[in-house]
Amino acid sequence: MDAPLSGTAPVFSIENEAGRGSAVIVCEHGSNLFPPEWGDLGTTAKIRSGHGAFDPGALDLARALARHLDAPLISAGLSRLIYDLDHPPHVPAAMPIVSKTHKIPGNRALTTTDRLRRVRQIYLPFHAALSALLAERLVLGMPTALLTVHSFDPVYFGLRQNAELRVQHDADPTLARRLAKAATAFSTRLTAPSGSSGETSHTLARHATPLNLRHAMLELRSDLLAEDAPGVAARLAPLLSDAIGAA
Amino acid sequence: MDAPLSGTAPVFSIENEAGRGSAVIVCEHGSNLFPPEWGDLGTTAKIRSGHGAFDPGALDLARALARHLDAPLISAGLSRLIYDLDHPPHVPAAMPIVSKTHKIPGNRALTTTDRLRRVRQIYLPFHAALSALLAERLVLGMPTALLTVHSFDPVYFGLRQNAELRVQHDADPTLARRLAKAATAFSTRLTAPSGSSGETSHTLARHATPLNLRHAMLELRSDLLAEDAPGVAARLAPLLSDAIGAA
Repeated sequence: MDAPLSGTAPVFSIENEAGRGSAVIVCEHGSNLFPPEWGDLGTTAKIRSGHGAFDPGALDLARALARHLDAPLISAGLSRLIYDLDHPPHVPAAMPIVSKTHKIPGNRALTTTDRLRRVRQIYLPFHAALSALLAERLVLGMPTALLTVHSFDPVYFGLRQNAELRVQHDADPTLARRLAKAATAFSTRLTAPSGSSGETSHTLARHATPLNLRHAMLELRSDLLAEDAPGVAARLAPLLSDAIGAA
Repeated sequence: MDAPLSGTAPVFSIENEAGRGSAVIVCEHGSNLFPPEWGDLGTTAKIRSGHGAFDPGALDLARALARHLDAPLISAGLSRLIYDLDHPPHVPAAMPIVSKTHKIPGNRALTTTDRLRRVRQIYLPFHAALSALLAERLVLGMPTALLTVHSFDPVYFGLRQNAELRVQHDADPTLARRLAKAATAFSTRLTAPSGSSGETSHTLARHATPLNLRHAMLELRSDLLAEDAPGVAARLAPLLSDAIGAA
């Protein structure tokens, strides 16, 4: 699967596409690139380097996990402020006008044409590629769990976050529960999915549940990743393997 | 959206794409075409004209409903025996080796390459097109309910079917329940979704639920459609309009 170019930057990438492990890894918020084609949306350098623009460390973790698990990895090539791939087109978070307390000027006066362009050039190709990747593995009879990899800020609206790992699921809690139970090496929290699937993980609702794939959304506290993402991956990978491999 | 050609026959068609009504209609089983590109799978003329190969009357009904509701309609161009678009690639029903009691010789010795070809040329393009159609309507702010239109045989494994209309749903029962309640002009049955979304309506699970769209799968008894599909549509359309339009 070739990742379509948008200007100079690919809107997504697939690494280790032929990986023979039992998972596919998705990193929707791994990039804080704002290529010329899309501009910087009037954001400051501080916003572009922070959690509003991407999930710091998530791509490093996702890549390390993909190596440990021999999993294909599909990751965003552009900042979530341009299009947040874990949200469907009609929710405000897809092209947010505010990220936490920061206004995103370049998203405030989007025309329908602007929105259609982002949906057609970013959202639809990314999800079509993930859909094709999963469908082809299923045809080949490859067991496939879907893992999405995110990070969260150690301080959120002034509140210190004690959890190190948060695990979330869509319809089938099996893998998330197993993982939350096994991950005693982390301060772990299993978070309930919110009622409205359009507002929680769109990727899991759109790809895992309709195919009956075991799945989990993993969120690591970003200070742990900044310190030692490969170390986190090395601790997490065997827990994931066990949780995925159990009948 | 151009429907990709497969040999001489389009694998799907979109009609009334710019329809301004509040629904999108899907007819996954509307066609019993077996174009030369795919062959007749060794089936008899009797199998090709019966419910195993398609849902008789469903496309007529879907087209009439699309006119009444000014809805876009996306429909399969090939028989469900080549690829059943309401099923994901890894379930036997997607490329069935048996349809009711009839063996389908051309599906018995499919190689992985054969399966991949059907998935890449039929399943993925159809669902990508439906995904794009829905995403674009959502960007335009158009209220959109997803309706899938099917038919069922008046006699099933020797049993006479008394219901005239069956209504099914995925996660959100709102529209299906409303419709089942309002459809007193038909002998109506609200059927519970089965536990495994891979085995019930894949289209609804894949497209309606992740976007929080109101949805229903409608199945009409095919003898009613053979007799008077436009009449059935004329009775059904106002019920659908009311059920979709209610807050």
